[in-house]
Amino acid sequence: MNSFVDLAAMMQPGEGDGGRDGARGIVHLVGAGPGDPELLTLRAARLLERADVVVYDHLVGAGVLALVGAQAERVYVGKQRADHRVPQPQINTLLVALAREGRTVVRLKGGDPFVFGRGGEELQALAAAGVRFEVVPGITAACGVTAYAGIPLTHRDCAQSCTFVTGHLKDGSCNLDWPALARPRQTVVIYMGLAGLPTICAQLAAHGLGADWPAAVIGSGTLAQQRVVAGTLGTLPALVADAALTAPCLTIVGEVVRLRDELAWFASAPRVHAEVAPLR
Amino acid sequence: MNSFVDLAAMMQPGEGDGGRDGARGIVHLVGAGPGDPELLTLRAARLLERADVVVYDHLVGAGVLALVGAQAERVYVGKQRADHRVPQPQINTLLVALAREGRTVVRLKGGDPFVFGRGGEELQALAAAGVRFEVVPGITAACGVTAYAGIPLTHRDCAQSCTFVTGHLKDGSCNLDWPALARPRQTVVIYMGLAGLPTICAQLAAHGLGADWPAAVIGSGTLAQQRVVAGTLGTLPALVADAALTAPCLTIVGEVVRLRDELAWFASAPRVHAEVAPLR
Repeated sequence: MNSFVDLAAMMQPGEGDGGRDGARGIVHLVGAGPGDPELLTLRAARLLERADVVVYDHLVGAGVLALVGAQAERVYVGKQRADHRVPQPQINTLLVALAREGRTVVRLKGGDPFVFGRGGEELQALAAAGVRFEVVPGITAACGVTAYAGIPLTHRDCAQSCTFVTGHLKDGSCNLDWPALARPRQTVVIYMGLAGLPTICAQLAAHGLGADWPAAVIGSGTLAQQRVVAGTLGTLPALVADAALTAPCLTIVGEVVRLRDELAWFASAPRVHAEVAPLR
Repeated sequence: MNSFVDLAAMMQPGEGDGGRDGARGIVHLVGAGPGDPELLTLRAARLLERADVVVYDHLVGAGVLALVGAQAERVYVGKQRADHRVPQPQINTLLVALAREGRTVVRLKGGDPFVFGRGGEELQALAAAGVRFEVVPGITAACGVTAYAGIPLTHRDCAQSCTFVTGHLKDGSCNLDWPALARPRQTVVIYMGLAGLPTICAQLAAHGLGADWPAAVIGSGTLAQQRVVAGTLGTLPALVADAALTAPCLTIVGEVVRLRDELAWFASAPRVHAEVAPLR
């Protein structure tokens, strides 16, 4: 199953409630990592091979989905035809219904399910319904994408902490805790699209980091088409606008961005990656 | 090779310099994840199988080392007999020397190599020496350990950001940016031993979070012997002192800790984990 048309039927009340195998159903909340399927965990790969059903988001790429067993039903809850996502309560209801049918369900999310993935909310719904679950953490984008870009999240010389935030745009403005983010000796990673980038750069510069503070945006991180645009808070918005990056994108702010000049390995030499273990 | 006695011989000047295979040597900087070997990435497992040499730290556990190929030399650089680690410059020199011998080297670090792992420093040494390298990110403790403890790092109701810090003790005091850490709607994860816990709790409470703010310490996270001690900034130091947790430990501060009451799955039901894919 690969479309929404059957979702309603799957969630018919009574379907599976107290069914013969209801007690054996389980939901595995699994992180798919940042993109490169080689970054799946051993456990995630094993669960994908064996699952009865895989319920997945738009951030899960084709390379990861290729590891799903042939027997598994695939349910896409990322975006409907009209470009709206399935509402969260509907996803929660679907997961409960599938588990109550006695099935082994993998709920597959891009990155790590507990880092801006709303995984906690889905588990709360499962717990309230008495459905068994397990969590398999994934490589979150902040770790995976920066690693492939040659940008260490921490470094004794310039970053003793790292902070991950997501920017929620409301009427074109970002509502972030600027004084807490605009600190030296810290790396800030912003999970979001590019719409808020000019606001983020301007606010962080104005709150004390200054226009010369290093910053970068990475598009399609860890994939062959990865692109890194590095600059400063002052120059980055224009550089990114010119670069026409493709989603998903991640923004990194901090002095560690400069280390990329020494440490870039993936974009400059993708063959190093390929010759050791070619992607399937 | 499993001891230090041969390190000096391996680093003899001239050994391997310009050797026949020097140009083919490579260092893979690999994250071993938080403990459970099932949380290794596919790529990390593949590289461990094939490596000529694996250079590893004390935070890499027995379950992960069991995946190293039989042909590989193992070099432990965690702690010497006198309980001191190998100095970082010596590790850097060793990695360069091994790669110049034309060998495929896995530099294996607990968690993620770029999150408080000094991975960036090691890569700078490799880059300066002209040695090829690659980075394989790992599940960092903040993600892996909290997932197994049933504590989401972020949640729309109570945490829009998460911050990872490491506490450096100097003369018994912790030198952290308390005003930036003592924020509502944020999860703080502290990578460190337990010596600084009373200071951390007292400072975060005093800087605005208050003594009733939720906090937890997790010992041996993701392993069968995982233990979670949850309380508040006011109660946690005494609870942890009573619990006699074993290293490594991770401290989590934030309202997400309360979600564990609903979402704990690993400690309360380890069989859920075991029945699907028994640990090796």
